[in-house]
Amino acid sequence: MLLEAALDDIRPRTSGAPAGYIPELADADPDRLALAVVGPRGRVITAGDDHVEFTIQSMSKPFVLALALQTMGRDSVFGRVGAEPSGEPFNAISLEPGTGRPANPMVNAGAIATTALIAGEDIDQRTARVIEMMSAFAGRSLWVDEAVYRSKSATGDRNRALAHLLKSYGHIAGRVDDVVESYFRQCSVLVTVRDLAVMAATLAFGGRNPVTGDRVVDERVARDVTSIMASCGMYDFSGEWLLRVGLPAKSGVSGGVLAVAPSQFGVAAFSPRLDEHGNSVRASAVVEMLSERFGMHLLEPHESIAEPGVVIEASPGGPIVRLSGELGFAGAERALSLLKEIAASVPDGAEVVVDATALARTHPAAITVMRDEFAQLAPRFRLLE
Amino acid sequence: MLLEAALDDIRPRTSGAPAGYIPELADADPDRLALAVVGPRGRVITAGDDHVEFTIQSMSKPFVLALALQTMGRDSVFGRVGAEPSGEPFNAISLEPGTGRPANPMVNAGAIATTALIAGEDIDQRTARVIEMMSAFAGRSLWVDEAVYRSKSATGDRNRALAHLLKSYGHIAGRVDDVVESYFRQCSVLVTVRDLAVMAATLAFGGRNPVTGDRVVDERVARDVTSIMASCGMYDFSGEWLLRVGLPAKSGVSGGVLAVAPSQFGVAAFSPRLDEHGNSVRASAVVEMLSERFGMHLLEPHESIAEPGVVIEASPGGPIVRLSGELGFAGAERALSLLKEIAASVPDGAEVVVDATALARTHPAAITVMRDEFAQLAPRFRLLE
Amino acid sequence: MLLEAALDDIRPRTSGAPAGYIPELADADPDRLALAVVGPRGRVITAGDDHVEFTIQSMSKPFVLALALQTMGRDSVFGRVGAEPSGEPFNAISLEPGTGRPANPMVNAGAIATTALIAGEDIDQRTARVIEMMSAFAGRSLWVDEAVYRSKSATGDRNRALAHLLKSYGHIAGRVDDVVESYFRQCSVLVTVRDLAVMAATLAFGGRNPVTGDRVVDERVARDVTSIMASCGMYDFSGEWLLRVGLPAKSGVSGGVLAVAPSQFGVAAFSPRLDEHGNSVRASAVVEMLSERFGMHLLEPHESIAEPGVVIEASPGGPIVRLSGELGFAGAERALSLLKEIAASVPDGAEVVVDATALARTHPAAITVMRDEFAQLAPRFRLLE
Amino acid sequence: MLLEAALDDIRPRTSGAPAGYIPELADADPDRLALAVVGPRGRVITAGDDHVEFTIQSMSKPFVLALALQTMGRDSVFGRVGAEPSGEPFNAISLEPGTGRPANPMVNAGAIATTALIAGEDIDQRTARVIEMMSAFAGRSLWVDEAVYRSKSATGDRNRALAHLLKSYGHIAGRVDDVVESYFRQCSVLVTVRDLAVMAATLAFGGRNPVTGDRVVDERVARDVTSIMASCGMYDFSGEWLLRVGLPAKSGVSGGVLAVAPSQFGVAAFSPRLDEHGNSVRASAVVEMLSERFGMHLLEPHESIAEPGVVIEASPGGPIVRLSGELGFAGAERALSLLKEIAASVPDGAEVVVDATALARTHPAAITVMRDEFAQLAPRFRLLE
Repeated sequence: MLLEAALDDIRPRTSGAPAGYIPELADADPDRLALAVVGPRGRVITAGDDHVEFTIQSMSKPFVLALALQTMGRDSVFGRVGAEPSGEPFNAISLEPGTGRPANPMVNAGAIATTALIAGEDIDQRTARVIEMMSAFAGRSLWVDEAVYRSKSATGDRNRALAHLLKSYGHIAGRVDDVVESYFRQCSVLVTVRDLAVMAATLAFGGRNPVTGDRVVDERVARDVTSIMASCGMYDFSGEWLLRVGLPAKSGVSGGVLAVAPSQFGVAAFSPRLDEHGNSVRASAVVEMLSERFGMHLLEPHESIAEPGVVIEASPGGPIVRLSGELGFAGAERALSLLKEIAASVPDGAEVVVDATALARTHPAAITVMRDEFAQLAPRFRLLE
Repeated sequence: MLLEAALDDIRPRTSGAPAGYIPELADADPDRLALAVVGPRGRVITAGDDHVEFTIQSMSKPFVLALALQTMGRDSVFGRVGAEPSGEPFNAISLEPGTGRPANPMVNAGAIATTALIAGEDIDQRTARVIEMMSAFAGRSLWVDEAVYRSKSATGDRNRALAHLLKSYGHIAGRVDDVVESYFRQCSVLVTVRDLAVMAATLAFGGRNPVTGDRVVDERVARDVTSIMASCGMYDFSGEWLLRVGLPAKSGVSGGVLAVAPSQFGVAAFSPRLDEHGNSVRASAVVEMLSERFGMHLLEPHESIAEPGVVIEASPGGPIVRLSGELGFAGAERALSLLKEIAASVPDGAEVVVDATALARTHPAAITVMRDEFAQLAPRFRLLE
Repeated sequence: MLLEAALDDIRPRTSGAPAGYIPELADADPDRLALAVVGPRGRVITAGDDHVEFTIQSMSKPFVLALALQTMGRDSVFGRVGAEPSGEPFNAISLEPGTGRPANPMVNAGAIATTALIAGEDIDQRTARVIEMMSAFAGRSLWVDEAVYRSKSATGDRNRALAHLLKSYGHIAGRVDDVVESYFRQCSVLVTVRDLAVMAATLAFGGRNPVTGDRVVDERVARDVTSIMASCGMYDFSGEWLLRVGLPAKSGVSGGVLAVAPSQFGVAAFSPRLDEHGNSVRASAVVEMLSERFGMHLLEPHESIAEPGVVIEASPGGPIVRLSGELGFAGAERALSLLKEIAASVPDGAEVVVDATALARTHPAAITVMRDEFAQLAPRFRLLE
Repeated sequence: MLLEAALDDIRPRTSGAPAGYIPELADADPDRLALAVVGPRGRVITAGDDHVEFTIQSMSKPFVLALALQTMGRDSVFGRVGAEPSGEPFNAISLEPGTGRPANPMVNAGAIATTALIAGEDIDQRTARVIEMMSAFAGRSLWVDEAVYRSKSATGDRNRALAHLLKSYGHIAGRVDDVVESYFRQCSVLVTVRDLAVMAATLAFGGRNPVTGDRVVDERVARDVTSIMASCGMYDFSGEWLLRVGLPAKSGVSGGVLAVAPSQFGVAAFSPRLDEHGNSVRASAVVEMLSERFGMHLLEPHESIAEPGVVIEASPGGPIVRLSGELGFAGAERALSLLKEIAASVPDGAEVVVDATALARTHPAAITVMRDEFAQLAPRFRLLE
């Protein structure tokens, strides 16, 4: 209902046009509109044309980056590809002067360089690994749309050009043709908004697919991918997107947009008409609307609400302070302030025992600060962890 | 102790050199090193050379942007200045081809255009307003270092060039010289790391200064400023910074760096030696280290921990479900899952009353989802808010 | 009659529009059309609106370059300003990355840097020197249009920006404001097509004004200025212009074009409507037409026609070959071929005397080659020079 | 002797290094130095290592351009490739934003687009046509160095990238691989300085090979090719080269430079060490020295020396003025001045007959001006042509 209502609000926006460079995209029904959200327990809510399949296109980039990071490590990957937004349109060449290093893994050159990092003896082996990873993110076996792939390959000279440039700078080890065809195949994988939302949710929950329960990539990999999406995911609209929507996201020329609300949900929308940046007009708008309505902007300040329960018991050796529930960063500060008052009131020689063993959860910053402060209050305090 | 330890870890890094373009910066003691953190209750912790004053330089930009947003509104400001990282070095011209609109308010051209938006009949009036705002962020009256200002003005031809270019595109309404001199004065304001950390904390806590308790700017303004810092604050290292450190930040050529952990704390560090991007080597490193140790990376997935207490009472009309404590997004999903089980078990005709009146706090997304789901479960459920 | 006919052919071309950035140019009567040619003896032929005065604008640049070269020397000038076409539109910034050196003296930044090289204690003194030089080129005292100057100064922020950029790179020694105002004044000098054609002719005849007979600049200076006009004079249409027209030229936004046919004539045309490169549509077309009709393209191969008269006299010591008339490069080759035949036919011991004393003129290459060949034929030949 | 002396002057310059990107070039003996000049009668003078063969590399570009212009026409060629210097280094991508049209036929992208215009069903057919044309320019059958070709092909990813970019913009009709391999083969043709000088001389004499006497291309084609060499032939040193040397030229990474003195001679030099623009240090220097010594700078003003002989005969009907010898542009002006004096002295009713039938040669501009002036003096004058 909520999602349906959001689609209804967005439906009248009919500006833009489907991508025209291959017939399969140009022929898409421009009125299609779909939305899906996947929460922490893997519940999937969808609305609109949620059964329509379309090719993943550039939205494959974060997941191939994830595969590269998982298998090659951060240093290998970011030694080959930068992490800076290029400030340039989606079809710019964007290679660093001198080194030829692509600006980031979300522009085509960077994505091709990333695909080139995936091990594989030939196109099929590399493609198999890429699709296996994308399937793990989606929680089901994904397939390539062969007609789209053939069209993309037949018109893919700009991407071939990028690949040969990368090769000329030494950023591709294998055969250029193999890498490019693998890239075209990864872009031609068929998905629905449901798939994309599950894939986004897998990033949102630290690399664990909330539907299947499988760990797909390490938490650090998910964080790195999401960071790159935050700075570079929406082409030369990325800064504006972070300002207005505040969620790491990635769009594709087929009309899809997926976005990640870390620890909260994954969302995806689909509508084929694109704006001048190459982002779907309606899919972008509906994700922005949800972010606004749900208060999901990453930089929205939320009052930190994890304050522990505090019970003070008298004991012969001095008071015992029992902490329970949750301890966030702000909560730690409040607890410390209370402890200092207690410290001021106990007689000389008495010791205050702080029992943190019953805390259900603690924020790492909170416990770090607590320990540090205890070190300063010692020897009057003893912390039981 | 914790901060001291962080400084000790960083102290051996002596690469880089102080900014050389005016004598006042070139003559800074390169060994200075300082750090300050300010939490939600306004507690200030500092370490190192926390008494040393230096000029704020480019770190003034977020606060002048805040003043412009607060007084002119978002549309006025972003009509004049873009929100995209430029992908270019700190001293690039970075004007949009055709329109001459600066890429963003964190590059010099964009900062000058932003200063030009501040109302004022002359240099002094505009400067007074800017310094008043910066003082409100810092929680004390700030002053201009007149020697630095004079040096900056004497060597400021590149910035004058940018201002005349902006004027030629119609992006500056008043006198170019007035605007430029105001800009030089705002950059020459003296601060310590303590000041900068309080300023960062004011952004972190939604525009309310946690030390003075004063609301300085609206929450939305704080969010917008922080968003721009996230995408553009560290020059052409911004993407890499978001990847590695994950905190909105701004650096200045005097050697300062300030960073914002939304709802958690503000942090600032200072050390004069700069790297090739114009960012302080040691100040950057110590902020990165704190972010890592405290787990403060914005895109770090944290398990959402705000789950409500649930008590079910039988009553003649059907069960009453009493929610207490906190209701986050993930918590809402768990609560809904429980409610559906209850719904399946109550006899026909019975009504489930969900009493949310005792909830201490709710996340906006959580309550929105709850209401939406309730609408679908109705008429079996009644929500007391 | 010939020029009138050319104008009649061109008159129907009414595309383009007068420059709009200051009222004085925008208000020009767009139908004005004028043409003037000045030959080696200083004969001036004009047609059309030859009495109309307009401001010289960018057509001042070659003459200020000439003044700088004449007074400062080639190395000083080209140390400050490059000699490369920029490949960029007329209003581009075109400073070399790193050094900030302007691409060439025909783009605005380079022209301002050139003006800055002209000695002068203040605006008036520098302007006086510039106008004195331009007057010497034109053969009459030229004046500034004060209304145009004031408009140009009032709207000159882009040029001020360039000047401050140059200052920031150390390419302007004096006060930026002085240099810019001098530049605006030099652009506001009033001329007719007659004046421009005389100025062009002065360059065509090696720096000697063919009307007044005065040497205005050295031959080398005229050659350097003409070379720069050949590669950079028509903005980002310079390559195309050299291909199609083949004459060093310079245009101005007032609608004038002047062109140089070395050793042949100077030509100028005027019509206010400009094309997208900022060059006058009709003035460019009529100069192109004249170049075509007169066969004046610099790279048109002409059969070299300077062949000496040769008379062979018998004498007791051997033949005497008397050369008369003119000796060009090709002629030298023909003469040498004849001399070798003679050498083959004279008896051993005889000497061939070649009397070159009656040659009216010789091309430097011809005489160099002759001498070199004689050195090889010796001792059979003796050259009387 | 003259050429030997020039080489001796240049020999001590040992800065720079041979091109390193393929072993065949890197291994060239860096001390090689050769020079050749070819005059209008086809006389070839050489000095130094004139027997050494090297690959023609980028010096093939003017001749493939000539073939394209000869077979496709000017509009077809310059519809596909621009005529503007790019202001960029030799390895820049230099495609026009939006259209992807290469800046000019002398940069790699433009040369590849030019090669693509040569008809041919496959690599061999296209290459055969190209080499046939180059052989006609050189006056002997040229061959491909297969080892260099294979190396170039093996490392040619940057050029392949350019070709795919061109294909993506629709600037290549056939198969990309075919075009690129043809291009690599044309660059791998073996030549000596003698060959290059004959090729340059063929351009200098309007497309007629002065050694074989064959017309290779039309005069207009030779003029167009030479014009493009003048503005774009020496990479981003082209403007500086025109300023200092004043001859249309083309260099190649193998260390050759060829230059054209229109109607005077062709010259070529060879020495493998290159400067930072990719031009041979010593070959450039020796061509510059020859231009200077021979006074061959295109923009050197030469006094025009073609003045006709004038004999005045009395006759019953009025004076008869007999012109003989040569009539240049300046000479026409002098003759006209004399005719006007005569006109002023003849009695009313008398007619002046001007007999131009004995003129050996006339410059087209001269005869055009004469006719025009006669039309004005009529009916007193009658011109016998």
